[in-house]
Amino acid sequence: MELDEFEIPKTHPRYWSLVIREKLVRGFRKGIVVPQGLIAHGRGECFDYLIGERTQEPALEAIRAAAAALLLAERPVISVNGNVAALVPKEVVELSRLVNAKIEVNLFYRSKEREYLIAELLKSYGASEVLGVGEDASAVIPELMSERRRVSPRGILIADTVLIPLEDGDRAEALKKMGKFIIAIDLNPLSRTARVADITIVDNIVRAMPKLIEEVRNLKKCPREHLKSILQNYDNDAVLRKMLQIIVRNLEELARRGVTISLPK
Amino acid sequence: MELDEFEIPKTHPRYWSLVIREKLVRGFRKGIVVPQGLIAHGRGECFDYLIGERTQEPALEAIRAAAAALLLAERPVISVNGNVAALVPKEVVELSRLVNAKIEVNLFYRSKEREYLIAELLKSYGASEVLGVGEDASAVIPELMSERRRVSPRGILIADTVLIPLEDGDRAEALKKMGKFIIAIDLNPLSRTARVADITIVDNIVRAMPKLIEEVRNLKKCPREHLKSILQNYDNDAVLRKMLQIIVRNLEELARRGVTISLPK
Repeated sequence: MELDEFEIPKTHPRYWSLVIREKLVRGFRKGIVVPQGLIAHGRGECFDYLIGERTQEPALEAIRAAAAALLLAERPVISVNGNVAALVPKEVVELSRLVNAKIEVNLFYRSKEREYLIAELLKSYGASEVLGVGEDASAVIPELMSERRRVSPRGILIADTVLIPLEDGDRAEALKKMGKFIIAIDLNPLSRTARVADITIVDNIVRAMPKLIEEVRNLKKCPREHLKSILQNYDNDAVLRKMLQIIVRNLEELARRGVTISLPK
Repeated sequence: MELDEFEIPKTHPRYWSLVIREKLVRGFRKGIVVPQGLIAHGRGECFDYLIGERTQEPALEAIRAAAAALLLAERPVISVNGNVAALVPKEVVELSRLVNAKIEVNLFYRSKEREYLIAELLKSYGASEVLGVGEDASAVIPELMSERRRVSPRGILIADTVLIPLEDGDRAEALKKMGKFIIAIDLNPLSRTARVADITIVDNIVRAMPKLIEEVRNLKKCPREHLKSILQNYDNDAVLRKMLQIIVRNLEELARRGVTISLPK
């Protein structure tokens, strides 16, 4: 992520936010991201601002539990949509290798072309196999209508644990009803996805994924009993509550100090 | 805004939000809205959710003061960007007629083609003249760099009062330094635009514009002295503080009740 690459001055007060946005706009121009994905990203920016644009302590707790859950899983799958592919393709591939997870393309607005583009992008970062593309998405999630219910019979259908970054609430609920253990990455601690997940990482995906990878590396050599105890002691409701408290406190603090929330246009 | 027009069921719990989004995506496909405008809209959706998706009392206060200010102005201008044109073209034209305001296209990402498209759209809704298009944007706002500083010598340059819906913070500050009386419509009560404006309507533009038009009609026959007293008694800082309190209260309430903030994907 170089200065020249995005032509954004590194001194800009909102440098990172602008770089992330630029990545998404580029993904959009390549046909990987849909217009609705840009709108969803804007919403994320707002929540990111409210949580202070850094990985908060409760998010670190969730990341630790997520790392343990992925390492304990028998058949973990990482679900990838357009925004995820545009923002963290390298990290998705790296994580999938570390925990032996399958990668599955999972689009809210499904099109064969976009599936292939995303698969190609992930393969260019070293993914050996990408599920959920074309004919592979031949199984269906019960409860869901339309193309959104299509999943791979070798991936999400038989997975025990699914990492769903930036996922839709309907789909998250349907996966839960199928009995999956769900790890969400979602900036809105009050979203349905955040509430239905077993572990919710309330953080920006561009910060959370590298930290999740780091935590997996840390825990990889631990005995399974230790990983299980991390999961047993994890309380997702408490984590969500704490994240919400952080947002409320940030707003109160900003209001008290008369500070401006300056978001780039 | 019919059911058939957008193919969204009127029973959908987030019907209005989806309709607004669809208008923007259509504006985007027509070349009126830029990708960055979609991201900015997503951010707005988040703040709209936090203010409760309705026009709150402090916003009504601001709308009343804005109506008075526009009626008192000698040379009012309504500044229009891509998102404004996509969302409230009819209302922009109607308001400009009621208060004798000029309409000026003012793009953060300026292109001649987009200027013309927006002017044509506004003319299709009955605008007799649209400034800031092509050669007309020949004057510059001091302090600002690049194409973003271009304004019309017959519009914003000589205006006393400028209505800036959904405006960038840099530009809002520059206009203020030029001595303009600024009325902003902005869903983020902590933005630089919100803080630098003389009157800040913290509300969704699709709700605020019809209410502003209604208020102008109500006040149109009042004596100037009455309008002046409305303005003198208006306290923008207090309004911003109250809006922020509403956001904090909403978040606390949502957290307490365990309610989900369910935003459409």
